[in-house]
Amino acid sequence: MSSTLTGVFTCGDINGIGPEITLKAIGKLIPAKKINIKLVMPANVFEEVKRLTGIYPEPDGQFELIDIGNCDLNPGIPSKASGRAAFEALKTGYALCEDDHHSFLVTAPISKYALKLAGINFPGHTEMLAEWSGTDKFVMMFLSDNFKCALATIHIPISLVPAALTGENIERCLTTVKASLNRDFSISDPNIALLGLNPHAGENGLIGTEEIDQISGVIERFGKGVEGPFPADAFFGRKQYLNFDIYLAMYHDQGLIPFKLLTSGSGVNYTAGLKIVRTSPDHGTAFDIAWQNKADASSIIKSVDWGKRICFNRRLFDAG
Amino acid sequence: MSSTLTGVFTCGDINGIGPEITLKAIGKLIPAKKINIKLVMPANVFEEVKRLTGIYPEPDGQFELIDIGNCDLNPGIPSKASGRAAFEALKTGYALCEDDHHSFLVTAPISKYALKLAGINFPGHTEMLAEWSGTDKFVMMFLSDNFKCALATIHIPISLVPAALTGENIERCLTTVKASLNRDFSISDPNIALLGLNPHAGENGLIGTEEIDQISGVIERFGKGVEGPFPADAFFGRKQYLNFDIYLAMYHDQGLIPFKLLTSGSGVNYTAGLKIVRTSPDHGTAFDIAWQNKADASSIIKSVDWGKRICFNRRLFDAG
Repeated sequence: MSSTLTGVFTCGDINGIGPEITLKAIGKLIPAKKINIKLVMPANVFEEVKRLTGIYPEPDGQFELIDIGNCDLNPGIPSKASGRAAFEALKTGYALCEDDHHSFLVTAPISKYALKLAGINFPGHTEMLAEWSGTDKFVMMFLSDNFKCALATIHIPISLVPAALTGENIERCLTTVKASLNRDFSISDPNIALLGLNPHAGENGLIGTEEIDQISGVIERFGKGVEGPFPADAFFGRKQYLNFDIYLAMYHDQGLIPFKLLTSGSGVNYTAGLKIVRTSPDHGTAFDIAWQNKADASSIIKSVDWGKRICFNRRLFDAG
Repeated sequence: MSSTLTGVFTCGDINGIGPEITLKAIGKLIPAKKINIKLVMPANVFEEVKRLTGIYPEPDGQFELIDIGNCDLNPGIPSKASGRAAFEALKTGYALCEDDHHSFLVTAPISKYALKLAGINFPGHTEMLAEWSGTDKFVMMFLSDNFKCALATIHIPISLVPAALTGENIERCLTTVKASLNRDFSISDPNIALLGLNPHAGENGLIGTEEIDQISGVIERFGKGVEGPFPADAFFGRKQYLNFDIYLAMYHDQGLIPFKLLTSGSGVNYTAGLKIVRTSPDHGTAFDIAWQNKADASSIIKSVDWGKRICFNRRLFDAG
């Protein structure tokens, strides 16, 4: 179990803050010598971002640049070229981790708009990685030291959320979350909270019936360790989230409004259920401050810490 | 402007914590002698709650009990009788304030379930008071010292939210919010933030189109002082709410998850747009701890403070 792990970093959208935060993280990791590093990035962008940050990693046994071919740089402006490069970097990074249990992927933020310009119709990293993993049993999770958040639906309009919350989907989600807590986080008997969909969790069917028709049945089937559905506002107002290893939110903002409020930038995005281990910062491309050497690398540094821990836990779990 | 204000208190659901927190608040208010007090409550419940709390207000020039007739008490259990009494108390309290600009209403929590048992089909206080005020231009607001929250939709299932957010409804809401900030809170040029409905505020139509079709048009029509639609998770994660007098959330949990997290029990519920001034604590009936002399009265005490301030501001505004 002692062989060195490798962190594979993707550049994200090169016109955003991705190259800068990635290099800043690598600048901290190299002297510590605890992991090997592969950076997937166009070579010309690597040259530019070294000058921007004043960080000059040398190719050696610990560090390696995986060049995906030069790409036009337009700081602050998502483009067809940057969307294409983000996609290529991710695909390359994924392939490097796919059959290597000693590697984990850390992805810098991409732009859905740039992906679309490049003709790539995925709403985000998570969905692309799930497709390549050949699974529909994936869950977007957010990690912090004190609690975790999982999302039952992700990047879909609110109008489509109620129909997406079938008993089957919630059950699949819970199964994936539970397996991930066991294997990825070494939590053998997790406590999982489910939030209600409607105001006051439907108040016994007076404000919507999804809690009765879909959510409660799943909770009963799971039995011990799974509780809810909790009225979401009171769940956070009364600090009930501290009693659970994770809360499963029914939709994006229900999970992420409290998560981001409570973690103030130190949270990490994780995709449970993939073949590979993949973490990323919980913020976006920040085009407004791109290439100004102003971006804060703390969330991507936390992503590396979590990637290492998860990779290590998985190997321990798989070794039985 | 110097005549004494009167706080009219309703008992709420008598089987919940309403009578107890109301009497605790009154116990603090009487010695301060700053307002007159009318308490609307069944006489038998008043006798019981005096014994429970050890607080014995005497009828005099400052304090008056408005008896709505005895009612069976079943601590912790919402009933047809308690629903009926809650309704009667509210109706009586409303009438006492309706034509008296020196009075404001402070309402203890009621149970929608008990109301339903009593055959009263309103989802909450706000909707009843709006009907008696003869207005559909009312907005549920939440108040704290540093920021305020308003809700564009209230107690409806999430599945009905998108259709309820017509441009017309959002506009009516904003007009009411703006008028209330002017008149009730003495903020002459308010800054108002609108949150997006969908994840990432729809991300330019990639995740839902309500932001483009409904919300943005309203914001443009209002012009200066109204901004958005903001992606809700980042709005709170980046503390943007501190730059605004109020944020308008598109649905219940979007507004109340962050509000309750940020105010930890010190928030107050206010109904903007009514003829009368009405505030209430931002918590529920708490049947689980009812009649045990354990309930915390801090939110109802804050409700009295806000009621006084709003009443005073209105009279100042109306005097020109």
